[in-house]
Amino acid sequence: MSTVTCQISISLDGYVAGPDQSLQDPLGRGGLRLHEWLFAADRWREQHGESGGEAGVDSQVVDEAIRDVGAYVMGRRMFGGGDGPWDLTWRGWWGEEPPFRTPVFVLTHHPRPSLPMAGGTDFHFVTDGIHSALEQARKAAGDREVAIAGGASAVRQYLAAGLVDTLQLHVVPIMLGAGERLFDGLADLRLKQTRVVPGPTVTHVTYRVLP
Amino acid sequence: MSTVTCQISISLDGYVAGPDQSLQDPLGRGGLRLHEWLFAADRWREQHGESGGEAGVDSQVVDEAIRDVGAYVMGRRMFGGGDGPWDLTWRGWWGEEPPFRTPVFVLTHHPRPSLPMAGGTDFHFVTDGIHSALEQARKAAGDREVAIAGGASAVRQYLAAGLVDTLQLHVVPIMLGAGERLFDGLADLRLKQTRVVPGPTVTHVTYRVLP
Repeated sequence: MSTVTCQISISLDGYVAGPDQSLQDPLGRGGLRLHEWLFAADRWREQHGESGGEAGVDSQVVDEAIRDVGAYVMGRRMFGGGDGPWDLTWRGWWGEEPPFRTPVFVLTHHPRPSLPMAGGTDFHFVTDGIHSALEQARKAAGDREVAIAGGASAVRQYLAAGLVDTLQLHVVPIMLGAGERLFDGLADLRLKQTRVVPGPTVTHVTYRVLP
Repeated sequence: MSTVTCQISISLDGYVAGPDQSLQDPLGRGGLRLHEWLFAADRWREQHGESGGEAGVDSQVVDEAIRDVGAYVMGRRMFGGGDGPWDLTWRGWWGEEPPFRTPVFVLTHHPRPSLPMAGGTDFHFVTDGIHSALEQARKAAGDREVAIAGGASAVRQYLAAGLVDTLQLHVVPIMLGAGERLFDGLADLRLKQTRVVPGPTVTHVTYRVLP
């Protein structure tokens, strides 16, 4: 069965998004700084159709995180388009050729027909909960990994339900001071460190989630 | 002038002590688990007059953290003996030969004569604030380092005042769920990652504190 993975950037004070998140500012105040290491990685830029960037350890980490993914699950907020019923003109943040290139299962309370995009990304909208979305993603992924793409709320729900096998944190030496904490409500989570990759500015630590 | 260092174990959810700290349980519920990696390191055991333990990366990290320290500063709570005026029979948690083997400056609101102990540890009690304690520790340390030994409140005060040069975190993959957070109130802290040492169970990351 597919391994379920999750990788997410976290500030040293424990936040995965800054304060005052909104539709206009989905990562919250200062939240974009969590991802600066990522935006600089050539592998990420290539995945997102941009040139330039740096090769190196961070890029290898990105490559390893995405190359074996056969399907993604993401929360409604990460897909965007507001919290209510769908405006069908909203096709995600990523333009006509999203970087996922696999099926993507979007958790939502509002049904919507599947949305095939260029480059192999098909968005499917799942209204019957996180277990169903994961089940569908597993089927779509076959032997490949299922990645919980985010946002924080989706990641927390899957961690709380014991459905994640490996968690990779990109530990970014910034303080956000407020915002959304990854581990709130997850006091029972049990992890075992399995791998540490020192990047030039951030540290990538992989944990196996224990039953 | 002496470099001012600080090293502290932190849970993945950001706590340096568990909930319900008390005189009987100064690390709070579950807080001892933060230090299991340390208790297993032979260099730490040797420093504390105990035999056994493991050599290896964690032990090297301990050795590096203590070998160049010429003086320590610690908070009253770490030294122990309650929060009020001194019971002069209290001589610290560490027995008659404490592991510091240098002068140790204890922050307190209650004056007390200096307390020379066996093995080179002299406790001095400083009632006129963190700057004064650091100044005295610098003089005592000469060219060697001054280490802020803890607890969390003392560390936070020195970080907030911009008086720490390097911060080493031992990132322990446990959840404490509640307790004392290291970075509360330190949203303006600016750090630069300078070194990552992967241990077998925890990750040791050193940061330079930027002005």
